[in-house]
Amino acid sequence: MSHNTFGHMFRVTTFGESHGVAIGCVVDGCPPLIPLDVTEIQADLDRRRPGQSRFTTQRQEADAVKILSGVMVHPETGVQVTTGTPIALLIENTDQRSKDYSDIKDKFRPGHADFTYEAKYGLRDYRGGGRSSARETATRVAAGAIARKIVPGMTVRAALVQMGPHKIDRGNWDWDEVARNPFFCPDKDKAAFFESYLDGIRKSGSSIGAVIEVVADGVPAGLGAPIYAKLDGDLAAALMSINAVKGVEIGDGFGAAELSGEDNADEMRMTNHGPSFLSNHAGGILGGISTGQPVVARFAVKPTSSILSPRKTVDRNGADTDILTKGRHDPCVGIRAVPVAEAMAACVLADHFIRHRGQVG
Amino acid sequence: MSHNTFGHMFRVTTFGESHGVAIGCVVDGCPPLIPLDVTEIQADLDRRRPGQSRFTTQRQEADAVKILSGVMVHPETGVQVTTGTPIALLIENTDQRSKDYSDIKDKFRPGHADFTYEAKYGLRDYRGGGRSSARETATRVAAGAIARKIVPGMTVRAALVQMGPHKIDRGNWDWDEVARNPFFCPDKDKAAFFESYLDGIRKSGSSIGAVIEVVADGVPAGLGAPIYAKLDGDLAAALMSINAVKGVEIGDGFGAAELSGEDNADEMRMTNHGPSFLSNHAGGILGGISTGQPVVARFAVKPTSSILSPRKTVDRNGADTDILTKGRHDPCVGIRAVPVAEAMAACVLADHFIRHRGQVG
Amino acid sequence: MSHNTFGHMFRVTTFGESHGVAIGCVVDGCPPLIPLDVTEIQADLDRRRPGQSRFTTQRQEADAVKILSGVMVHPETGVQVTTGTPIALLIENTDQRSKDYSDIKDKFRPGHADFTYEAKYGLRDYRGGGRSSARETATRVAAGAIARKIVPGMTVRAALVQMGPHKIDRGNWDWDEVARNPFFCPDKDKAAFFESYLDGIRKSGSSIGAVIEVVADGVPAGLGAPIYAKLDGDLAAALMSINAVKGVEIGDGFGAAELSGEDNADEMRMTNHGPSFLSNHAGGILGGISTGQPVVARFAVKPTSSILSPRKTVDRNGADTDILTKGRHDPCVGIRAVPVAEAMAACVLADHFIRHRGQVG
Amino acid sequence: MSHNTFGHMFRVTTFGESHGVAIGCVVDGCPPLIPLDVTEIQADLDRRRPGQSRFTTQRQEADAVKILSGVMVHPETGVQVTTGTPIALLIENTDQRSKDYSDIKDKFRPGHADFTYEAKYGLRDYRGGGRSSARETATRVAAGAIARKIVPGMTVRAALVQMGPHKIDRGNWDWDEVARNPFFCPDKDKAAFFESYLDGIRKSGSSIGAVIEVVADGVPAGLGAPIYAKLDGDLAAALMSINAVKGVEIGDGFGAAELSGEDNADEMRMTNHGPSFLSNHAGGILGGISTGQPVVARFAVKPTSSILSPRKTVDRNGADTDILTKGRHDPCVGIRAVPVAEAMAACVLADHFIRHRGQVG
Repeated sequence: MSHNTFGHMFRVTTFGESHGVAIGCVVDGCPPLIPLDVTEIQADLDRRRPGQSRFTTQRQEADAVKILSGVMVHPETGVQVTTGTPIALLIENTDQRSKDYSDIKDKFRPGHADFTYEAKYGLRDYRGGGRSSARETATRVAAGAIARKIVPGMTVRAALVQMGPHKIDRGNWDWDEVARNPFFCPDKDKAAFFESYLDGIRKSGSSIGAVIEVVADGVPAGLGAPIYAKLDGDLAAALMSINAVKGVEIGDGFGAAELSGEDNADEMRMTNHGPSFLSNHAGGILGGISTGQPVVARFAVKPTSSILSPRKTVDRNGADTDILTKGRHDPCVGIRAVPVAEAMAACVLADHFIRHRGQVG
Repeated sequence: MSHNTFGHMFRVTTFGESHGVAIGCVVDGCPPLIPLDVTEIQADLDRRRPGQSRFTTQRQEADAVKILSGVMVHPETGVQVTTGTPIALLIENTDQRSKDYSDIKDKFRPGHADFTYEAKYGLRDYRGGGRSSARETATRVAAGAIARKIVPGMTVRAALVQMGPHKIDRGNWDWDEVARNPFFCPDKDKAAFFESYLDGIRKSGSSIGAVIEVVADGVPAGLGAPIYAKLDGDLAAALMSINAVKGVEIGDGFGAAELSGEDNADEMRMTNHGPSFLSNHAGGILGGISTGQPVVARFAVKPTSSILSPRKTVDRNGADTDILTKGRHDPCVGIRAVPVAEAMAACVLADHFIRHRGQVG
Repeated sequence: MSHNTFGHMFRVTTFGESHGVAIGCVVDGCPPLIPLDVTEIQADLDRRRPGQSRFTTQRQEADAVKILSGVMVHPETGVQVTTGTPIALLIENTDQRSKDYSDIKDKFRPGHADFTYEAKYGLRDYRGGGRSSARETATRVAAGAIARKIVPGMTVRAALVQMGPHKIDRGNWDWDEVARNPFFCPDKDKAAFFESYLDGIRKSGSSIGAVIEVVADGVPAGLGAPIYAKLDGDLAAALMSINAVKGVEIGDGFGAAELSGEDNADEMRMTNHGPSFLSNHAGGILGGISTGQPVVARFAVKPTSSILSPRKTVDRNGADTDILTKGRHDPCVGIRAVPVAEAMAACVLADHFIRHRGQVG
Repeated sequence: MSHNTFGHMFRVTTFGESHGVAIGCVVDGCPPLIPLDVTEIQADLDRRRPGQSRFTTQRQEADAVKILSGVMVHPETGVQVTTGTPIALLIENTDQRSKDYSDIKDKFRPGHADFTYEAKYGLRDYRGGGRSSARETATRVAAGAIARKIVPGMTVRAALVQMGPHKIDRGNWDWDEVARNPFFCPDKDKAAFFESYLDGIRKSGSSIGAVIEVVADGVPAGLGAPIYAKLDGDLAAALMSINAVKGVEIGDGFGAAELSGEDNADEMRMTNHGPSFLSNHAGGILGGISTGQPVVARFAVKPTSSILSPRKTVDRNGADTDILTKGRHDPCVGIRAVPVAEAMAACVLADHFIRHRGQVG
């Protein structure tokens, strides 16, 4: 990872600010001859799109994606396929309200990147958070839609498994449920609870954190590369790069710190299909390399920093002041992180698939 | 991060296996004219060295490091300094017991990377874990000793804050205590408890996990680069690359998921020294860029997989079997991860310091 | 360099095909607070734009560039400046004639990349050369316009110094002349000769090669990094990446092979301004690092492969056939390489300036 | 390429100075299960080793290489093979004469990197040229010996084709001759001439430049990646990184600038073995991608800067002075560049082979 690019062989470069002309990305290193239609990318974007329920920001934007390069209609099959050259994707910004930013232009919002961008660059784009806006994650979802197609048989899914202190009942886990509620929650009962819980938070102008779990099925054994390109290291960096993420864990994660060696060991037995693990404390990764079991990662998202209660801060002129953030915002920004996490995991796994195929042949 | 190299401007490439001729690293991109003596590197290595208490592997090795390149005695000052060219560091392996590996040569030890290296490469170095051995981390500690000297005024310290389910009392935190017990524990009382606790685990041939906290003081505001070179993203990857690490968090980490926006906000006020934060939930990083507050990260280490109780596994020939691991091992591999974590954090911060200085000038 | 990105700290990623929706690039790592207006980029693009004389392809395209991200009006000065985030530049393709490609769709044009793209990817974009078209170089020129602003006091200029076997008279070198003829030729007399010379070639449907020289003045001493990031190595790769380039040389280049050590030595003497060289056989680079003298590089461009004389080739079905290329083309593609070379050199030098500032401080 | 590492998937990091403890390299990304014995690496090193004739520096050094990591005896075949982990190679410096450097310690030798290293880093290793010494190239030759084994059926050979103004007669080309004379010259007659020619130069304390040609046979079509990882771009950077190289060309190179499109076109015809080219002006590369024909590159090496005639220079204190270089040196440093060029080309081709296999599958 460097600057605004991630991946080593399957590389994604993103650009754009919340209130600029457009956001987009360049996907470089995608294998050729993969069928790719813009509707597939749009479908993933639509899952992430804000404004679809009262629980996400009311910014109304089509997020219509265009493919600018890297595909062509195959002269023989008539199907649009990738050509092996960079695939540029563009999403125009259409709902940059020409609002008055005088409230925040000169104040550093606590919990936001206002102060750090200013400290680093000597100025910051105060319009909607500029480059640090969650809007940038739309481009990752677009890239992820391509990445999903690289590893044969792989599926990557994510779900919200905790909101505030409230965890789902893992016995109720139903992947089909994820598409049926506005929280991407796999536990039907907890989703019903979250509806009233988050309504209360939303109405009070507050916000709350969340935990998301990503599961990749069908990952072949052998992906990942010692020592500084471990699959879990790359996943950790990829998930930590999502806005507001403050923690990442693989498999049992922090729970593993409390286990004995006996309890943590994933024992093995032969099956008709070859060696098989009897448990998956490791989250599908040992020594940085995939085991062939599902790859399981979780990450914590802090509460949205934009809240209606005034907070103490300072301004660019060095004076104490207070700030409160009016306008559209997500009471639980973790919700929209769910499809983003799928995209990031898919990109990392696609990259390692290509790398492994190259190195090992 | 790619393959066995990490860092973008301050780059560390490591090599070597547990039972090979030697391990080492090449530190590339170190600024010139930094005073560097081999004794400074050796001092850090001595902190990590096994065999210093009954709580770490009894492998007895001097871990004597040699500087092969990249330094010279300054013709005017007479002090040995870096030259700006790659600094190669070498540690010869001297205690590779010519033991009989027939017990494990053909069996996959649960929790180890045996199965995944074999799945990836078609063979694995079964002698002491080969490249996946914690021995590799000695080279990182050596590199970290150089990295510590890059950012003026920065200090990086780490401590063990949890062993199994037992957390330290943060009110007892005393950095001086860390050097006084074999656990790098900053809580004197808990250290006393760990002594008997870990003795019990050690004698039963079991093992236990741990949590380590790394704190970097004196980090200037502005380090880190959006979006895919965020300081927290790079720290997460760096810490996750340490053997047996299963989770990483920054600041409040997973705890932030349970907070409201009001509670999570790090408010600001002016002081004589400029803008100041009233709390540090963020762990010194906002939007991937350092705030000037201490950078705080924690990571979870799973229990050592080498235990005396037999576990079910399979062998390379596809037969079910059992395995138990005799011989030297760490009952809590998290202990030795403490100096390694300091080194990794120091390297990441040095890298971002150099990058920031380049981009912003 | 990797895939479609070049540079280490100042990184340029380009995308787009000759006959796709658009071409463009993402410039990542540009320092903040640099004044940047789209008219500056457009001015450089206009120099490269085809269709301006009868000596370049008659493709008529405005090549109007848009800045999509990475700039904002400075809130205090009112001047548009870079923000430190990625600058995306977009040029829409407007003159992709819906011509009939049946002539070349299934045939490999000798000297073109048709055969190799097909060999690599299993298909190729036959419309206007797809990704291998010289059209891609417009995006580099746009990136170069930004790069020119990074190194204080640096100017990068290029000129055509040879067409076919005809070299300019270096005694006639006048930089002002370069803008006055359609060949970017600094020798007024030779430019007049080239006019009739190239007319003859153009009318016969043939083509001819050329040699271009790039000179960067005001490059501070110390840029470049041993061993595999030498300034001349990076310049060589950058210039070789331009379409149809077959050779690159620095300073005396291949001529140096014929010199003795006495003749090749650039002797030094002190001046009021410090150490000074008495000659510049080295082309401003010693040991891969800039000397402070002008950096001088030259490169050879082969003749355009699209010619009116039929050539023997094969088709995708494995049959022998002949081919001749009708339609718009450049009789001397080297002409348009002049502004491209300036851009590439500027990007390489900007990258090394940022890297040097980071490493050495 | 960045800092002291080159390659993207097959990556080589080198370290060491002429008069330090040791030089060496780390080869990362080598595929597993490739038979590798130290004697194979030593054989290539022996070809490059100085002191083998009166025409290369009289430094007498065994250049004995050790493999420190990355190989093991395969448990089933008993053959030593690569494991997929980094292969570290070490060559100890044994002939660093403790000579008196007072002559050159404070003077900048014209044509050397003395001035630029000092300008960049604020100091320089004056002992034998430090990092800028040709001694570093021994490590590349070692890495190249591994790279040669990656692409099935590929052979990479180089030869000296010009010394000073004297070019070989290409009609006399005999690869077997290269091993029979101290110049790696494929033209027996010219080799005989070079013997007396270079003796004269050597005795007068002068030096002379040279041109080397590298030819890779058996390169499959499809290696190389647009646009900034073109095979010719990477070759150009790799060859330009060799000490004293001032120019690189592919195929007809600068000669192509003088050709018409008709003459430059490599026509094609079908054969029993598939599509075949009737000529190879392109040097086996079109559009940056290999054609399947031999890859042909040439590069120019300037004369050794260490000569016995005094040259004007300045010293570190800013005073005018003269310098002449006594002691061991190569009258034609181009000779020893021959095996180095083979190694660099082999590394680039191995890297692209792995990359292509990864991306295209």
